[in-house]
Amino acid sequence: MTKIQEISFELMRRRVMAAARPLPGEMVAIMQSRGRVLAERIRASHPVPSFDKSAMDGFAVRVSDIAPACCETPVSLKVTQTIAAGKYSLKPLASGSAARIMTGAPLPPGADCVVPIEYTRANNGYVTLRTGFQCGEHVLRKGTDMRKGQAILEKGTLIGPSQMAMLAMLDHPKVKVYRRPKVGILTTGDELGEVGKKRAPGHIPDSNRYGLFGLVESAGCIPVDGGRCGDDTRLLKKALTSLAKRCDFVISSGGVSAGDFDVVKILFCAIGGVNLYRLPIKPGKPQAFGRVQGVPYFGLPGNPVSAMVVFDFIVRPALLKMTGRVEIDPPGWSAQTESDFPRKSRSWEFPRVHAERQNYQWIVNPVKSQRSSDLKSMTDATGYVALPPTQGSPRAGDSVWYIPFVR
Amino acid sequence: MTKIQEISFELMRRRVMAAARPLPGEMVAIMQSRGRVLAERIRASHPVPSFDKSAMDGFAVRVSDIAPACCETPVSLKVTQTIAAGKYSLKPLASGSAARIMTGAPLPPGADCVVPIEYTRANNGYVTLRTGFQCGEHVLRKGTDMRKGQAILEKGTLIGPSQMAMLAMLDHPKVKVYRRPKVGILTTGDELGEVGKKRAPGHIPDSNRYGLFGLVESAGCIPVDGGRCGDDTRLLKKALTSLAKRCDFVISSGGVSAGDFDVVKILFCAIGGVNLYRLPIKPGKPQAFGRVQGVPYFGLPGNPVSAMVVFDFIVRPALLKMTGRVEIDPPGWSAQTESDFPRKSRSWEFPRVHAERQNYQWIVNPVKSQRSSDLKSMTDATGYVALPPTQGSPRAGDSVWYIPFVR
Repeated sequence: MTKIQEISFELMRRRVMAAARPLPGEMVAIMQSRGRVLAERIRASHPVPSFDKSAMDGFAVRVSDIAPACCETPVSLKVTQTIAAGKYSLKPLASGSAARIMTGAPLPPGADCVVPIEYTRANNGYVTLRTGFQCGEHVLRKGTDMRKGQAILEKGTLIGPSQMAMLAMLDHPKVKVYRRPKVGILTTGDELGEVGKKRAPGHIPDSNRYGLFGLVESAGCIPVDGGRCGDDTRLLKKALTSLAKRCDFVISSGGVSAGDFDVVKILFCAIGGVNLYRLPIKPGKPQAFGRVQGVPYFGLPGNPVSAMVVFDFIVRPALLKMTGRVEIDPPGWSAQTESDFPRKSRSWEFPRVHAERQNYQWIVNPVKSQRSSDLKSMTDATGYVALPPTQGSPRAGDSVWYIPFVR
Repeated sequence: MTKIQEISFELMRRRVMAAARPLPGEMVAIMQSRGRVLAERIRASHPVPSFDKSAMDGFAVRVSDIAPACCETPVSLKVTQTIAAGKYSLKPLASGSAARIMTGAPLPPGADCVVPIEYTRANNGYVTLRTGFQCGEHVLRKGTDMRKGQAILEKGTLIGPSQMAMLAMLDHPKVKVYRRPKVGILTTGDELGEVGKKRAPGHIPDSNRYGLFGLVESAGCIPVDGGRCGDDTRLLKKALTSLAKRCDFVISSGGVSAGDFDVVKILFCAIGGVNLYRLPIKPGKPQAFGRVQGVPYFGLPGNPVSAMVVFDFIVRPALLKMTGRVEIDPPGWSAQTESDFPRKSRSWEFPRVHAERQNYQWIVNPVKSQRSSDLKSMTDATGYVALPPTQGSPRAGDSVWYIPFVR
């Protein structure tokens, strides 16, 4: 019989993380890049802006011409050209003249300042101003935002809308991103039946398959459906090895607790390379981890809530690392609890809570059922409260650390 | 010339929200439902669990048989059957006997309690216990988690992994979700050129198209690329009306400020139904809003940062409402600023900040450049700080409200 190791939550997390490595890169078009992770550092291919441009709608002038302007002594300049955004003037601005200029348009040679339109009065081909401006005012100099060659986006950055716009601005119609990991999903148990079909008595719908599918997607990976497997060691071994050959990571649910029919457990004696663990975390104690066909494999508990908690806090960080992401900590913030969290154990606990914002304060309350078999404790909740072993029993009014579910 | 209306941020938001309505529903398979929004209320189609089941691995017994058990007077019962999960026993448990039972397996008729395996000793077809248990202990009664007909998931719920698992558990292989809105994107300006191609002098890459594409996707909508349009009223009108015919909402960028060539502005005099607005928000003042071909239309500013801010705080809530979502407020939480936020205006301000977690406290710092033309101020940042008009100038050490970017 294979031995069950008791290790800390932190050590388990580190072991699983260590097994996960980012995959090779591939090129994708910007439009397809949202949610992907940069596999290259992006430098500015050209200075931004790439020319001295007007930051306002107004008149491009020579500062020397307008220096004396003030309320009592207005200065009038002849408007000799009009420059719209997208038009490039090669005609130098002669002393004593002004160019009507739009936001974003390139300054004509010789101009060194833009007077916003609200400070001017135009009349009969002349513009009059009564305020002096300084050299460079309302002008965006070439390279102000980004210098040519400057590192702008780092490897490991999750690509969102601003990154997409930036890639476009820096002339990268395609970008190198990490390949998305394929994560195999296998659910085990003789009690599992088809969803929406008539099932044998004592059977339940195979809900974990769908939950895990969603979790894998929400971690930026591609779920690979490995099917459902009864409690039969031979079939399970076949399913697991075949799945491992097609995937970068494999997860299963069920079969890892203390029941006589928990065959995943028995299986590992046979295939080797996988260990059984019991971690001090609630919910979600029994787990399996190792390699199948050289591919990292994690055996989640069968209870739907335990499976999700263990996925979120142990498997998700490893998968995020595989996607190439540098920031893998779950987002979370301080909230005030309206209820007590009585604790008996010295485990990490992740009670499910409903969080609500009241003005500038988040308020959390544990959902009614905290049973690890009750999926409703997940759907009624908006996230977890993370209670480390060292923390006592938070009382109503205390601050707790709230971690919203990733959807 | 069309008049520019000055209205409050809140009123503008309400107007745009009012124009947005959820679209009709469509059926999708659970596996395709992540990120979609429920267009029906889901009730429990059957009680969960659907039979009395064991919550532990152990022995199903009759309480009356084991009542006298204690340290001094052990009780021995004959093990007459073994029930694995997925097996359904019709054989009643006779008095004086016990059934070996696994977690999740249905209780045999007559049994009313499960004794966990760790409290038992098995020997030669008999099991011995030294502790009494109460009726129903370690038994999950039929319907404990969910009663038949109980409302479990509400209309308007964003579907994530737990909801997918729940739909499976309640035998909904397909589910009715709101159709995803098609959002047309049109970028305007003679200065815009192709990304990654040689451009005319004074031209810049059309980066907004990609940023807006990502933003529309991140709001759960389908982006429809309406192409790029120069500053030509006739072409713009054509592009806008043709796009409106294919979409549920249309956005454009550029052409709404005070420049002589801001033709979107001029266009609206011609097509009617669209108004120009200047809002007290920083960045992002000039905007257009109304209807084109009866379809809601929003004209964003041309500066990349202004466009994103106005999208995030005015357009996004409306799009989320169109997707059917009930919760549309951006997530945000309290953070401590390490820097001052000097304010001159009485506008809503949304400075871009970099946020970092230090133990159980979030620390924010404004990114170096806050210029609305500098896209780097978005990519260097992790989110916004929201400063309402009524708030003074936060100083280092003060609490501010942090809103992370949606990626």
